[in-house]
Amino acid sequence: MSPAALIGVDWGSSNARAFLFGRDGSRLAERAAAIGIARHQGEACAGVLADWLRDWLDDYPGVPLLLCGMVGSRNGWRECAYLPTPAAPALLAGSLHAFDWRGRGVAIVPGVCHDNPLDGFSDVMRGEETQIAGLPAVCPQFDQLDWLLMPGTHCKWIRLRQGGIVELATYMTGEMYALLRQHSLLSGLIDDGGAWRVEPFLQGVEAAVAHPDWLHQLFGVRARGVRDAMPPDALAGWLSGLLIGYEIQAALARPADAPAKLCGIVGAPRLARCYAAALRHFSIETVAIDGDQAVAAGLWSLARQAGWV
Amino acid sequence: MSPAALIGVDWGSSNARAFLFGRDGSRLAERAAAIGIARHQGEACAGVLADWLRDWLDDYPGVPLLLCGMVGSRNGWRECAYLPTPAAPALLAGSLHAFDWRGRGVAIVPGVCHDNPLDGFSDVMRGEETQIAGLPAVCPQFDQLDWLLMPGTHCKWIRLRQGGIVELATYMTGEMYALLRQHSLLSGLIDDGGAWRVEPFLQGVEAAVAHPDWLHQLFGVRARGVRDAMPPDALAGWLSGLLIGYEIQAALARPADAPAKLCGIVGAPRLARCYAAALRHFSIETVAIDGDQAVAAGLWSLARQAGWV
Repeated sequence: MSPAALIGVDWGSSNARAFLFGRDGSRLAERAAAIGIARHQGEACAGVLADWLRDWLDDYPGVPLLLCGMVGSRNGWRECAYLPTPAAPALLAGSLHAFDWRGRGVAIVPGVCHDNPLDGFSDVMRGEETQIAGLPAVCPQFDQLDWLLMPGTHCKWIRLRQGGIVELATYMTGEMYALLRQHSLLSGLIDDGGAWRVEPFLQGVEAAVAHPDWLHQLFGVRARGVRDAMPPDALAGWLSGLLIGYEIQAALARPADAPAKLCGIVGAPRLARCYAAALRHFSIETVAIDGDQAVAAGLWSLARQAGWV
Repeated sequence: MSPAALIGVDWGSSNARAFLFGRDGSRLAERAAAIGIARHQGEACAGVLADWLRDWLDDYPGVPLLLCGMVGSRNGWRECAYLPTPAAPALLAGSLHAFDWRGRGVAIVPGVCHDNPLDGFSDVMRGEETQIAGLPAVCPQFDQLDWLLMPGTHCKWIRLRQGGIVELATYMTGEMYALLRQHSLLSGLIDDGGAWRVEPFLQGVEAAVAHPDWLHQLFGVRARGVRDAMPPDALAGWLSGLLIGYEIQAALARPADAPAKLCGIVGAPRLARCYAAALRHFSIETVAIDGDQAVAAGLWSLARQAGWV
């Protein structure tokens, strides 16, 4: 009997990560590669996967393959329709997009969409839903989490209730910081040197709360820099705090049954610490969650619930 | 007796415009050139000016020279300290920075700064104060204007009272639109083709009023584009309306003795028409003002009040 029960793959726009699971869910092996699906499309994805995982596929014929992430998007291998909120993991497991490939069962986890009349548009995610399915295995406080926050280029705030996804809102915070830092008239004034001090960062968070006129406050970064009112190494932290402050304030202002108390953060350690410091300012406790651990646990959990292992 | 009484120059970061005034304030000649201050500094400015206006300077020895704009900044010809608000034209005329240059009287109009505890930083302008000094000559309703609005890369909102400058706030609206249009992940989704339709523009204005969560709404431009919920030629107008809506809402929310009713707009005709359409949405009437006419009238008016002509 094969020692392997499942090959799981989290395949996003820029990177892919694969896990080889044993029959008890333990990870026998894992690997990562910069083979984002942004550079491949449709059946070309199958060839890329066959090359990348050739040894596993040869060694374990018939072992099923479960994929999540952008691989299920319009530009991925096979397009899988989004599952609308509210979306519990059991519903995800029951909605896998399954097909046969070279004599092997393959399934793709659908993304989740959230249509909120409050927003006026439909917000979407692919891959994060699988991390959420893995929370019970990687976060002891998972049933107390009000929000799961995924900071980055496009920051996702996912409202949870009893382990299910009830709301989703994406914020352009990371991209906005990069635009202002690299391409705007502020860029010459800012020197972030790769590390911020926490004081100007928190001052920026406070400024966002006090001043809703964000287009004026962004000009204030320039005014402070030009008039030497703030040193260049403080401006980067202040700007980051300002943007993150606006994001958190907006996320917490969304209508909810009860005020949020505990927020899980899945992200790079330094950025996660910044968000945790800012959230403390709003009296929200946080818990750090390892995204790779969560997605691996989620792939295994969904495969089990779907009866694939 | 020389037919000329004054040479006036509006010298900004990118361009310069010069006016030769007759003894009655009529304009005998004018010229413009792309010799912005950003490329010259200190006494080098004097050489650039001497080359550019050589014929006028030769023909009219002793005729005084009055300059306004970035020429008075730290990186200009001579740095002139900002005059703090409230700043009436008579006060500006009494604060000219005067010196002798090659046997001729030269004066630079100081810029104006506004220190507002509400903002947390000091906002500044150079050049716009001279346009304001010219309003009585170019705008019949000048004494009813509550705001003077100068849209562009950095949009200035100047609150007026009895012809004097009482408040100033600058917004990064134009630069933000350009950043998102040219460098962001939205740029591939937007096709503005140089002209917007007014409907999506006004929908964007309405969205700004309804949704303070701007970082989420900016992501919504992408979500709409990716999911084909709005055609590419509508997204540009919608994004512009969203940003301008946030700007106007913030400007009108500033504390004031009385609600604003009439707003003068100094700017390129197409952009000025967009702002006028958006301001009607907020029940504000507008009047278009020609910026070149205003600055010429302002230079003449300040020279008269200062006793230079």
